Amino acid sequence: MKDERQGNRRAFLKRTAAVVSGAAVAGGARAAELAGEPWERVYGAGFTKYGQPSRFEQIGRHLGQPYGELAPGSGAALAPIEALDGVITPNSVHFIRSHSGTPDIDPQAHRLYIHGLVDRPLRFSIDALLRYPRVSRIYFLECSGNSSRALTPQPAQVPAGGMHGNVSCAEWTGFPLRVLLEEAGVRPQAKWLLAEGADSAHMSRSIPLEKALDDALIALYQNGERLRPEQGYPVRLLLPGWEGNMSVKWLRRIKLTDAPTHTKDETSKYTDLLPDGRALQFTFEMGVKSVITRPSSTMKLAERGFHEISGIAWSGAGRVRRVEVSTDGGKTWADATLLGEERPRALVRFRHPWQWNGGAALLQSRATDEKGTVQPPRRDWLARYSPDNRFHNNSIVTWSVEGDGSVKHVYA
Amino acid sequence: MKDERQGNRRAFLKRTAAVVSGAAVAGGARAAELAGEPWERVYGAGFTKYGQPSRFEQIGRHLGQPYGELAPGSGAALAPIEALDGVITPNSVHFIRSHSGTPDIDPQAHRLYIHGLVDRPLRFSIDALLRYPRVSRIYFLECSGNSSRALTPQPAQVPAGGMHGNVSCAEWTGFPLRVLLEEAGVRPQAKWLLAEGADSAHMSRSIPLEKALDDALIALYQNGERLRPEQGYPVRLLLPGWEGNMSVKWLRRIKLTDAPTHTKDETSKYTDLLPDGRALQFTFEMGVKSVITRPSSTMKLAERGFHEISGIAWSGAGRVRRVEVSTDGGKTWADATLLGEERPRALVRFRHPWQWNGGAALLQSRATDEKGTVQPPRRDWLARYSPDNRFHNNSIVTWSVEGDGSVKHVYA
Repeated sequence: MKDERQGNRRAFLKRTAAVVSGAAVAGGARAAELAGEPWERVYGAGFTKYGQPSRFEQIGRHLGQPYGELAPGSGAALAPIEALDGVITPNSVHFIRSHSGTPDIDPQAHRLYIHGLVDRPLRFSIDALLRYPRVSRIYFLECSGNSSRALTPQPAQVPAGGMHGNVSCAEWTGFPLRVLLEEAGVRPQAKWLLAEGADSAHMSRSIPLEKALDDALIALYQNGERLRPEQGYPVRLLLPGWEGNMSVKWLRRIKLTDAPTHTKDETSKYTDLLPDGRALQFTFEMGVKSVITRPSSTMKLAERGFHEISGIAWSGAGRVRRVEVSTDGGKTWADATLLGEERPRALVRFRHPWQWNGGAALLQSRATDEKGTVQPPRRDWLARYSPDNRFHNNSIVTWSVEGDGSVKHVYA
Repeated sequence: MKDERQGNRRAFLKRTAAVVSGAAVAGGARAAELAGEPWERVYGAGFTKYGQPSRFEQIGRHLGQPYGELAPGSGAALAPIEALDGVITPNSVHFIRSHSGTPDIDPQAHRLYIHGLVDRPLRFSIDALLRYPRVSRIYFLECSGNSSRALTPQPAQVPAGGMHGNVSCAEWTGFPLRVLLEEAGVRPQAKWLLAEGADSAHMSRSIPLEKALDDALIALYQNGERLRPEQGYPVRLLLPGWEGNMSVKWLRRIKLTDAPTHTKDETSKYTDLLPDGRALQFTFEMGVKSVITRPSSTMKLAERGFHEISGIAWSGAGRVRRVEVSTDGGKTWADATLLGEERPRALVRFRHPWQWNGGAALLQSRATDEKGTVQPPRRDWLARYSPDNRFHNNSIVTWSVEGDGSVKHVYA
C-alpha cells in the first residue's frame, strides 16, 4: 500500500481539488481481508431500549456551580460545544441554567394557569396541553450570561464549551402560546405577561404581549422526545431568539398584566451594567455571535497541514447571513461555508478549510445577521458596558495556535 | 374561572379559526398565585453531565429478538415512533438492526481499508477520518424489513413503532465517501464496491459505484455527538434513501470490484420474493411511505372532539411532495400540513386536524414523492409479491377508531 503522506500527495491534491488531511497511512492489502480485531470474533452486546454513548466517548456538560455542593443545581451546566458537530445539540448535553435545581414534577399533578387581565381565567392539565395541534421548529437557546467566563482578567484556559457553551439548539415541538391567550381572551389593558416556573425559586420574567402573540411556543417535546426534566419538563415556554431565562421552564402560570412585574429575576440579575453605573433592563434579544469550536482552547493540532476550522453562529434577530474566519487575528477575513442559514434563530454550522503551516496563528470568527448587524470586536463590546457587566457578551473570540500546535484562549 | 368545555366554546372557535382541544378545565384564580405543589417547596436536583429522560417518560425501543436470549443482539430494536414528535429521532431510541449484536470497538485500534481495484490501497485510523472537511445532512434510515410485522395473517395489536418503527431520522455529520475513493484512485474496471462491517457477522453489501460517488457519506456524528455504538461507532457508511442495511455500520473495509460480490447478506436475505417464486435482488431504494403515529394502534382517545392526526412520511427517491389523510378508510382524502418537506430523503412530519364525533373511523395516510410515486394500497402491494416476502412493505396502514375511542390495527 502507498503511504499517502509520502506518495502521490501532489497528484491527489490536483485531482480532487479538495484539501485532504494527509493523515491516511499505508497498510497491508491482506490485512483488509482478515478479521483481525477481538470484537470481530465475539458476539456483540444485546439491544438496549434506551441507548447511551460509547464508553470511549464520555462527553459531558461543563458544570458551573458557584455555590458548590451547597446548591448543586444553581448555576449553569454548559454544552460541550467543542466536542459536537452539526447544529442539533443532543438533549443529554443541552446547556442548563437553573436557579434552584431541577424540580421533580409529576405531570399528572402539574397545572398551567392563565390569569390576570383575561376574560376567562383558565387552568390546563398536561393532558389538555398535549391535545393542541402542534408545530415543530429548530431554534437555538442562549443564556444571556453565556461567555461571561470570557470576561475574567486573564483569559481562562478551558475548553470552548466551558466559556461559550451556554448555547444549544434543538427541534422544539409544541404549539403557539397565542392559541391559549386567544382562548383566555386577552383584555385591552394587558400589555405584558408574567411567566413563572414551578421550581422552588419560582423563576419568573415579564414578557411583552407582542412577543407572546408572535412566535412564542408552549414547548412539550425536544428533539423528538418529551422535554427533559432539566429543560422544563413537563412544559416550558420558548421565546425564539430571546434570553434563555425568559423561556421559562416548568411553566406553571402566565399572568396578563398592564406593565412589567419587575420580578427579582429581572431586577437583581439579567440587567446589563453600563459604564455610567446605570443598569440596562430588558435586553431581550440575543446578539449576533459566533465561536470557533474546532480547533479551540485546550486542543492541540497533531500535525501541520489541513485542518477544518468549524464553529457555530446564531442571532436572536433572525438568520445568520455570513460568517467570516480570520487566521491572522482579524487582519484578513474569508467567508466560511454555512449550513442551516435558512433557519431564523437557529444555530448555523460554519466550516472553513485551513492549511496550518506550523507557525503561530490567531483564529477568529465574525458573524453578520440578516439585519446587517456584525458581531463586535472585544474592545468595542467592552467599551459599551461597565467592567462588571456579565450579560450579552457577543464579542469576537480569539484562539491562538502556538508553534507546537497547542491552542490557547487569548484576548485580542 | 370558566370551564372551557361548557363556556364560550363556539365563540372561541369562531375567534381563533383553529380547532382547539376543548380540554382546558376551570380552576380557581387564587390557585395560580399559590405555590401549591411539593416540588415548588424543595430545592431541586443538581446538574448532570449527561442527562436522561424524566422518570415519568420511560419510552424505549420495541425489541424484536427472534432468537431470544440465545442472540440478544440479533434482530431489530424499533423506534417508539408513537411516542415521538417532530422529525429528529433521539439517538437513544433510533432504531437498531444488527445481525450479531453491537461490537465493543476501540476507536484507537479500528482501521478502515480501501482496497481492491484502486491505484493506492489505503488504511485509515479514526483520527485520520476525523481530519477530513465535514458536511451535515438530515436523512432518514429505514430497514428494508420495516413493517414486516404488518404482514402477519391477523393484524398485530401492538404500538405503531412495534410494526413500523424500523425507521428513524437524524442529522448525520461526516464527509463524502467520494473523497476517499478519489484519494485511493478508482480503476476504470471498478463498477461496484463491497462494504463490510467489523461486527462478528461481518455484515457486508455490494454497492454500485455510482451511488458511492454520488451522496454516500462516511458518517462520524449523529445528532451532534459521535455515533452511538449500536449505530456503527466509530464509523459507518450512510447511503441516503437506500435500504438501511447497506449503510454498513462499524465500517472496516471498502473493496472496489468489477461486479457485485453476492454476499450472504444480499442472497440469503434482503431479497424480495415474487409471486412466481423468483427473488428480486438489489432493491436499493426505499419506497414512498407514511404512517400515522398519533392516534395509532393500542392508543385510546379520551374523549370526542378535536384530535390532531399526525405522522411521518418519507421517500428514498427524494422529497415528499404530499401526504393525504383519510378518516373513512380511503373513500375521501384531505391534504395534511407538512413539515420538513424541503429536505430530500429525510422524515417529514405531517399533521391534520380532526374532529372525532364518537363514531367508528378508519384512519389512513398516503404519501406522494417528488417523482410522483404514490404509496400503494395494501392489496396492490400484496399482489406484487409472494405471500412470503418480508421486505419493502410501503403499503398504506389503517388504524380503526372504535366507538369507545380505542384504536386498533386493521387490514383494509
